[in-house]
Amino acid sequence: MKELNYMSVAEEAMAKIRKGAFLTVKSEAGLNTMTIGWATIGFIWQKPVFMAAVRPTRHTFGIIEKAADFTVTVPSGDMLKETTFCGTKSGRDVDKFKACNLKTQNGRHTTSPIIEAAGIHFECRIVFKSAMNPDYLDAVFDRAIYPLKDYHTLYFGEILACYETQ
Amino acid sequence: MKELNYMSVAEEAMAKIRKGAFLTVKSEAGLNTMTIGWATIGFIWQKPVFMAAVRPTRHTFGIIEKAADFTVTVPSGDMLKETTFCGTKSGRDVDKFKACNLKTQNGRHTTSPIIEAAGIHFECRIVFKSAMNPDYLDAVFDRAIYPLKDYHTLYFGEILACYETQ
Repeated sequence: MKELNYMSVAEEAMAKIRKGAFLTVKSEAGLNTMTIGWATIGFIWQKPVFMAAVRPTRHTFGIIEKAADFTVTVPSGDMLKETTFCGTKSGRDVDKFKACNLKTQNGRHTTSPIIEAAGIHFECRIVFKSAMNPDYLDAVFDRAIYPLKDYHTLYFGEILACYETQ
Repeated sequence: MKELNYMSVAEEAMAKIRKGAFLTVKSEAGLNTMTIGWATIGFIWQKPVFMAAVRPTRHTFGIIEKAADFTVTVPSGDMLKETTFCGTKSGRDVDKFKACNLKTQNGRHTTSPIIEAAGIHFECRIVFKSAMNPDYLDAVFDRAIYPLKDYHTLYFGEILACYETQ
């Protein structure tokens, strides 16, 4: 395991996240992982922050709404089969970990585990969230991204750890 | 002028933004520039996005609330005197451009101009905004960052251009 500077890997991580990364969340409401393709990374409130977005229709939504934290695992190898599965199937209907043979590892600083896969891992404590209000969203984005009006909630996670595993 | 990939410069830009960058906004309500030290950069809604935060007490707030866009100029040289001035004085009381001898250049894609300074420039179209609801903010952050309850509005700008000038 190698500690990483979160901004030094931002370019590489974002390029890979766009192809699919795992957002993993555990709370009293359960454990699930889902695929994300969007994120922002930076520094706000004097802290390194990772922002992830979850639609309310997602099984993960009920879990993250009760969670203190989340993790993001950005695989370095080809996990297209797994990220496609975890991005299209719901944890309501199937145990994604079992179905994809995904193992988890305890977070070092988070209740939410990471996915046991070679890659970059972010452990994030939720410090702010914002349910998107469509009144303040570009109308073209609204029509293109939200035909079902299932606006994302944006979760801002303080990055507690960022590291790479082989 | 050299075109840049917004994520390729994210690490360098964030390191410099933390020391002070210019957020410049023009709308029917006026023109102003202020210093920012926080930002996030990434990819959401299928677009490259730069997020900046403005407190409602700022002169810039009244301008950006009516604006279609903003720019961020990240100086490569030492502009500590200028960023300190623009971060502590209000555009209500003083013409910052005149006081700091800051010149502007037209944005290529934005109504808001950039600051004429060597560095990295982002031209951003506002596609979403969120006035922070303290109910969803970490209590420690609330006390530390917002003793006056002047919660930021977060402005999400689609990055229309990112380039460097000498």
